[in-house]
Amino acid sequence: MTDRPISMTYASRPKIRLYVEQPLGQGQPVTLSRDAAHYLIGVMRQGIGDAVALFNGRDGEWRARIASAGKRACDLTCEEPTAPQLNPPDLWLCFAPIKKARTDFIVEKAAELGVARICPVQTEYTNSERIRRDRLQAHAVEAAEQCGATFVPPVDDLQPLARMLDTWPEGRILYWADEAAVPGPPPTPLRDGMPAPAAILIGPEGGFSPGERARLADLLFVRRIGLGPRILRADTAAVAAITLWQAALGDWAHPAP
Amino acid sequence: MTDRPISMTYASRPKIRLYVEQPLGQGQPVTLSRDAAHYLIGVMRQGIGDAVALFNGRDGEWRARIASAGKRACDLTCEEPTAPQLNPPDLWLCFAPIKKARTDFIVEKAAELGVARICPVQTEYTNSERIRRDRLQAHAVEAAEQCGATFVPPVDDLQPLARMLDTWPEGRILYWADEAAVPGPPPTPLRDGMPAPAAILIGPEGGFSPGERARLADLLFVRRIGLGPRILRADTAAVAAITLWQAALGDWAHPAP
Repeated sequence: MTDRPISMTYASRPKIRLYVEQPLGQGQPVTLSRDAAHYLIGVMRQGIGDAVALFNGRDGEWRARIASAGKRACDLTCEEPTAPQLNPPDLWLCFAPIKKARTDFIVEKAAELGVARICPVQTEYTNSERIRRDRLQAHAVEAAEQCGATFVPPVDDLQPLARMLDTWPEGRILYWADEAAVPGPPPTPLRDGMPAPAAILIGPEGGFSPGERARLADLLFVRRIGLGPRILRADTAAVAAITLWQAALGDWAHPAP
Repeated sequence: MTDRPISMTYASRPKIRLYVEQPLGQGQPVTLSRDAAHYLIGVMRQGIGDAVALFNGRDGEWRARIASAGKRACDLTCEEPTAPQLNPPDLWLCFAPIKKARTDFIVEKAAELGVARICPVQTEYTNSERIRRDRLQAHAVEAAEQCGATFVPPVDDLQPLARMLDTWPEGRILYWADEAAVPGPPPTPLRDGMPAPAAILIGPEGGFSPGERARLADLLFVRRIGLGPRILRADTAAVAAITLWQAALGDWAHPAP
């Protein structure tokens, strides 16, 4: 007898986890990409019969066994589900790219903490005019592989803040981490806010320009949030804001069924 | 006319900020260390008459002007206060050191978010048996310099978890970020908890051993907290836990007067 509802049971999870794009399911064959095969066989020294965990962002996590292995090729067969698909709440992280290492860090942490989409935005004080979208996406995949996640947030191309605001979807609240917000109970709009769909906006070093500030302050879908009396780096602010949203309104507060 | 209470007024803050150990106050002369003088004169190209911001963790921030400058020597005179002393709440961060870059990161973020003390602890699953305390302390200083902070949390020497728990001070709650905590509204003990003195405990990769878990679960001053349904890296967990504590019980919720 158990209090838990009857549900799918899950086998123990292999330690090596790989993200793949192919469908996963009972008996499903999977062919790894050259890079993934090299990592699994060449670097991690796995061979025929060894088990790894596969996930694709849609079908949960599956234990798959290596059926054939070459230096740069590897076929596996899915055997059993090892974890259910856990999608994040519909929260976007919109942030102005900063220095390379700190931008990588923001993407990694957003994937770990559970956001649905990562939207780099170009603001007036943003230094970089381009991002390596594919590299940032690879960071999100790696964070998911490392942290047992089954979902990988897509990373958008860089877009100007003005265009993002012009085309903002109806019904999605944008929480603006305003470095000039009056100190005081900061998570009020979060604690009393509405659940997803939502988004968080983090500025670059130096914050937003006066023109951007005026526009943000005027928009009905924007809510200001403060993050305490200290000046936070942009990467710290991103982690702090996602944490507060997740704990107040996201799936840290209300676990998915 | 203004709504603000009459108080000390502060001059605008110079961009270059330096931590010093000497007392600061009106007219106070300050001699920089060789390294700080080299940074200010040699690297940042400042000279006689230029202004920098000085703080020592006790006396707030002061604008000081360079009175004499050599290649590896520099004397300044304090002119005006530019920011009040802002001490953090009495919150300690106790964490098991992990890989070098991520340990540095934890110290940097703890200093930014506002903790009073940083306590590295050695647990059964901690890989490192020593830390470079002086290097971690320098990271805390650098974070304070960069982020406009006037306080620098001291970094303790590494100590075994068992000894830390044996000598735990009366009246200080220890919030244990338990990776096996049942998902559910996680910040409950924070939201309904008691304010400082407090501490947060973050384990290493792999969490705590069964023996450590049993001991922690038995201690009356320990409260478990959960950080959502995802597996977080130790550095992410540290930032998330400090954020939730600060927003619920610290000076993000209740600004210092």
